[in-house]
Amino acid sequence: MSDENTTIAELKQVVDRFVSEREWHTFHNPKNLAMSLSIEAAELMEHFQWLTQDEADAVIGQAENRDEIGEEIADCLAYLLSLANVMNLDLDQTLRQKMVKNAAKYPVETSRGVARPNPSGESSV
Amino acid sequence: MSDENTTIAELKQVVDRFVSEREWHTFHNPKNLAMSLSIEAAELMEHFQWLTQDEADAVIGQAENRDEIGEEIADCLAYLLSLANVMNLDLDQTLRQKMVKNAAKYPVETSRGVARPNPSGESSV
Amino acid sequence: MSDENTTIAELKQVVDRFVSEREWHTFHNPKNLAMSLSIEAAELMEHFQWLTQDEADAVIGQAENRDEIGEEIADCLAYLLSLANVMNLDLDQTLRQKMVKNAAKYPVETSRGVARPNPSGESSV
Amino acid sequence: MSDENTTIAELKQVVDRFVSEREWHTFHNPKNLAMSLSIEAAELMEHFQWLTQDEADAVIGQAENRDEIGEEIADCLAYLLSLANVMNLDLDQTLRQKMVKNAAKYPVETSRGVARPNPSGESSV
Repeated sequence: MSDENTTIAELKQVVDRFVSEREWHTFHNPKNLAMSLSIEAAELMEHFQWLTQDEADAVIGQAENRDEIGEEIADCLAYLLSLANVMNLDLDQTLRQKMVKNAAKYPVETSRGVARPNPSGESSV
Repeated sequence: MSDENTTIAELKQVVDRFVSEREWHTFHNPKNLAMSLSIEAAELMEHFQWLTQDEADAVIGQAENRDEIGEEIADCLAYLLSLANVMNLDLDQTLRQKMVKNAAKYPVETSRGVARPNPSGESSV
Repeated sequence: MSDENTTIAELKQVVDRFVSEREWHTFHNPKNLAMSLSIEAAELMEHFQWLTQDEADAVIGQAENRDEIGEEIADCLAYLLSLANVMNLDLDQTLRQKMVKNAAKYPVETSRGVARPNPSGESSV
Repeated sequence: MSDENTTIAELKQVVDRFVSEREWHTFHNPKNLAMSLSIEAAELMEHFQWLTQDEADAVIGQAENRDEIGEEIADCLAYLLSLANVMNLDLDQTLRQKMVKNAAKYPVETSRGVARPNPSGESSV
C-alpha cells in the first residue's frame, strides 16, 4: 500500500479502529484533539528549532532524523484524521474548497515568488 | 470526489500544483512548513479556546462554526501534505508504521478507557 | 528574592547572562525564539491535554505536577525574556499599553462574565 | 515606570485586576490559559513565518512591525502572568530554580556556541 492507492477514507479507518479498540472516544473530543494536534505540531517543529534553513533542508535527508520527523508527521496526521472522524468531515471536499478560496486570495499573477509580507490570520498555503 | 475514492497522492498533487504555480517552493522549506502547521493548528484550537468541553462538542454541529473549523483543518492538512511533498514521504506507510508503534506502546488490554496520565513527549493517538 | 521585590530587568539579566555565557546569541534570533516559546507553550499544554477542566484544576495543586508545570512556565518565561532582550523591549511598558487596548476592546460593562464567542485573532486577556 | 523599577508582582496585579473586573476567572482555568498562551505564541511566530533569518532580524527594528510584535509578546506575557496568578506561583523563584537546572544540563564549557542537535523534550534556554 502507498499514497498512490490508499484513500483518505482508509486512513481515517486506521485511526478510528485504534481509538475504538481503546475506547478513547471520550478523550477524543474536538477541544482535546485540537490541543493534541497543536502539541504534535510543536514536537515536529522542535526538530528544526535551532537549525538554519540550510541545516533544516539537510536534516530531512538524514535517515535517523527523517524517521523521527516522519513519526511526528504521522502523529499530526493521526490527530487530523481523528478530528475529521469526530466531525464527520470529508477532508477531500474540505481541502479542495479551501484551495479554491486560497487561489482567489493569492492569484497566480500577483503571488508568483512573493511571500506574504504581513500576518493575516489566514493561511497562505 | 470524496474521501472514499480520493487517494492521498491526489491530495498531495492538489497542494503541490498550488505551490508550484505560485513558485512558493523557496518558502516551503521544512522549517517554515513546520512553523506554518503549528500556526494553523493554533488557529484551529482558537475555536475551542474558551469553551467548555460540552460547548466545544456542540460547536462542531453548528453550520457557520463547522465551516470555519473545516477551513482551519484544511489549512493544517495542506501544510502537512506540502511537508510530505518536500520530504518525498509516503504518508500511508508512515502513518501505518507509527500506529503499529503506538499499538505496542498502548496495548488494548491496559489502555481501554484510560487516559495517559503524564506528559511523555510521545503521541497517544 | 521573590516576585514582590524582583524587577523585570533583574529577570531579564538572569536569562541574558545564561545565554551570553554559552555564546548562544547566534541561535537566539527572533525567529528561533518565537518558535521556542511556541514549543515550550505546547509542552506546558501537554500537562492538561487529556484532562477534564476539573482534573486540570486539581493537577496544579499536586506537588509533583505543580513542579513540572512550573518548570514549563519557567521555560516559556525565559524565552519571552530572551526575546525582549533581543528586541531591547521594555516589557512593563509594552504590557501596560496592551492592557489599555484590551480594556477598550472589552469594556467592563459588556464583558462581565462573558467569554469571547468567536476567534478574532486578538487576545482576550 | 519601566522594567528597571517594576516588580513581577506589580505586573501580576495588572493582569489580575483586568481579569477580576470582567469576572473572567471562570474562563481563566489552567487548561484554557495554557491553550491561550500557545495560541498567542503562534500569533507571535506568524510574524516570522515566511522570513529568512536575516529578514526576521531586520523586522524587529521596523517601527510598525516592532509594535505589532510587541503586542503579541504582551499577550503571551499576560497569559503567563495569569497562569502564575491562578497557580499562586512565584515566577522569580521558579525561573531561577529552572535556570540552575538548565545550567547543570548545559555546562558552559561544553555548550559554548553549540546548538542542541536533537529534540529532547527539554528546554535549552
